[in-house]
Amino acid sequence: MKLTLDMTGLEAAFLTLLTAFIITVLLAPRFIPMLHRLKFGQEVRDDGPQSHLKKQGTPTMGGIMFLIAIIAASLIGALRIGKPTPEMLQILLMTAGFGLIGFADDYLKIKRHKSDGLSPRQKLILQLVLTFVFALWVWMHGEAGGQPGGRILVPFTGSSENALYIDLPVWIYIPFVIFVVLGTDNGVNFTDGLDGLCSSVTCVTAAFFLILGLAGTEPGISVVSGAVIGGLMGFLLFNVYPAKVFMGDTGSLALGGFVAAAAVVSGTELYIPVVGFIYMIEVISVMIQVGYFKATHGKRFFKMAPIHHHFELLGNSETRIVAAFTIATILLSSAALIGVLHH
Amino acid sequence: MKLTLDMTGLEAAFLTLLTAFIITVLLAPRFIPMLHRLKFGQEVRDDGPQSHLKKQGTPTMGGIMFLIAIIAASLIGALRIGKPTPEMLQILLMTAGFGLIGFADDYLKIKRHKSDGLSPRQKLILQLVLTFVFALWVWMHGEAGGQPGGRILVPFTGSSENALYIDLPVWIYIPFVIFVVLGTDNGVNFTDGLDGLCSSVTCVTAAFFLILGLAGTEPGISVVSGAVIGGLMGFLLFNVYPAKVFMGDTGSLALGGFVAAAAVVSGTELYIPVVGFIYMIEVISVMIQVGYFKATHGKRFFKMAPIHHHFELLGNSETRIVAAFTIATILLSSAALIGVLHH
Repeated sequence: MKLTLDMTGLEAAFLTLLTAFIITVLLAPRFIPMLHRLKFGQEVRDDGPQSHLKKQGTPTMGGIMFLIAIIAASLIGALRIGKPTPEMLQILLMTAGFGLIGFADDYLKIKRHKSDGLSPRQKLILQLVLTFVFALWVWMHGEAGGQPGGRILVPFTGSSENALYIDLPVWIYIPFVIFVVLGTDNGVNFTDGLDGLCSSVTCVTAAFFLILGLAGTEPGISVVSGAVIGGLMGFLLFNVYPAKVFMGDTGSLALGGFVAAAAVVSGTELYIPVVGFIYMIEVISVMIQVGYFKATHGKRFFKMAPIHHHFELLGNSETRIVAAFTIATILLSSAALIGVLHH
Repeated sequence: MKLTLDMTGLEAAFLTLLTAFIITVLLAPRFIPMLHRLKFGQEVRDDGPQSHLKKQGTPTMGGIMFLIAIIAASLIGALRIGKPTPEMLQILLMTAGFGLIGFADDYLKIKRHKSDGLSPRQKLILQLVLTFVFALWVWMHGEAGGQPGGRILVPFTGSSENALYIDLPVWIYIPFVIFVVLGTDNGVNFTDGLDGLCSSVTCVTAAFFLILGLAGTEPGISVVSGAVIGGLMGFLLFNVYPAKVFMGDTGSLALGGFVAAAAVVSGTELYIPVVGFIYMIEVISVMIQVGYFKATHGKRFFKMAPIHHHFELLGNSETRIVAAFTIATILLSSAALIGVLHH
């Protein structure tokens, strides 16, 4: 059994990764003090763990740095593989679009000096409109073969002609994509609660899509994924515990948009529970906590939700939880990769 | 340009990685308290940074856990690819052999209750004998092609028939291998000075050799590398800042033996300055510091050597230096990988 990878795509993806890394590292020393001056500091949620109160005042919205880097580096990278592919533009649309929604949210939080930004309703409507446009575009462009269609891959059946696919009609496909995108984006958003957690986990997720793109002759996906990895690595130098900057909703919504769009464009939506296992348990832990609290009239299922706080209150250090969640993502993404690449 | 990878080897390597991970994670909760009871705590060097004095008493010799895991998982993994290849046994010999030398050193340090273990002379002789046996075995077995010989790859010329090789006569090859092994092993040993640093960096280095083995149809190298990654990931859950256990010389010498042997066996010795850049600057920083101190009769070139302490005293957190050194290794290993895989 042999696996064939596209070396030109690999080289383009790596150079894009380097470009995004350098842009982020150059932006940070100018950008972080600016966020400080503009008082874009985090208002730490007053219902979080006590130990997190010291994070009050750490500048947020740092996601802007890697968002700029991802977009710029991807467009430069596109030149290396010819021109931007539709897949690449679709992913960038979702990354930048959700990043802008997050930015509006972050900005309003700071203006109003409290932990609430956009209303949940406003946020939902913006996300729905954007995702609808994206889903329709992907449908029109045709996912695997050239004809319009919504094709999703059955996990662990490989990805070549022997693999199993499900072809969905448009009226199921579009709601399905909306569900995938909103679920993933919320998960990534909840994951952003410990120093370096969301950046580390998403670096690994992006590496999954990078290799997937090389194997599936879709270098556009690899190039954007490379940009995401590079941007996040640069960001991590400032976001690792003890964090000097947070990504904010600008960052976490953008990354959620990236992960969801990369999965939709490559037809690997059903791999998200594996590759994005951490995002999933983060969002599910919140749902369980809220549901259990209501059903029992005040009891808590976890010590605190999202689940990373539960582990913290069990006595694990922030750094240890980040390491464990990142390692879990590496193991699961590797398994998923073998599942997709298996012929 | 296409790159072909061996999927059977990839699957074997991944299953080996998982096996080693599970073994380490199962051993740790039993093993770490035992080290505590036996008083195998670290005697922190009294000339290190002040902030490291709190590490006094953290149990060391944790490397035994991943060393057991690496050997067991590799031998199980060998069954998946048929039987242990000579390359695999050569690498395991060096990993286990250097691990044992480190163990003797650690054990004596604890027995004698001070920071010195084996005398430098004893350590050197043991290492020289072991490396000589290894170098001769590699030479006899023939490195690339089947005939006895010492063949090393010229960096960034690819690895297929078009690549440039240097064939060394035995009387140059063996001293060359000894130089590579001792240099690398010292570098890895010096790198083990911040929580999680050596484990994280060596995880990445091992990933380089894993992929190299898949591309070069040498699944034995991939299987051992998978075992090293799995063992280190499991260890990292306890070794990440704030560390609950250190690897000790048992661990760092074993890892040095692994890195050097994997490079020698695959003929990629000249890539070590790229993939093992961190190891190299660690050992060179010590050489510069000592040389400068002697030449200037008491002046220091770095605030402190090895270089990770220099960065610490410049005001960077331990976690940040670990992140930066790991990211640097990821970037450099990726570049090296493209250099080797390029056809």
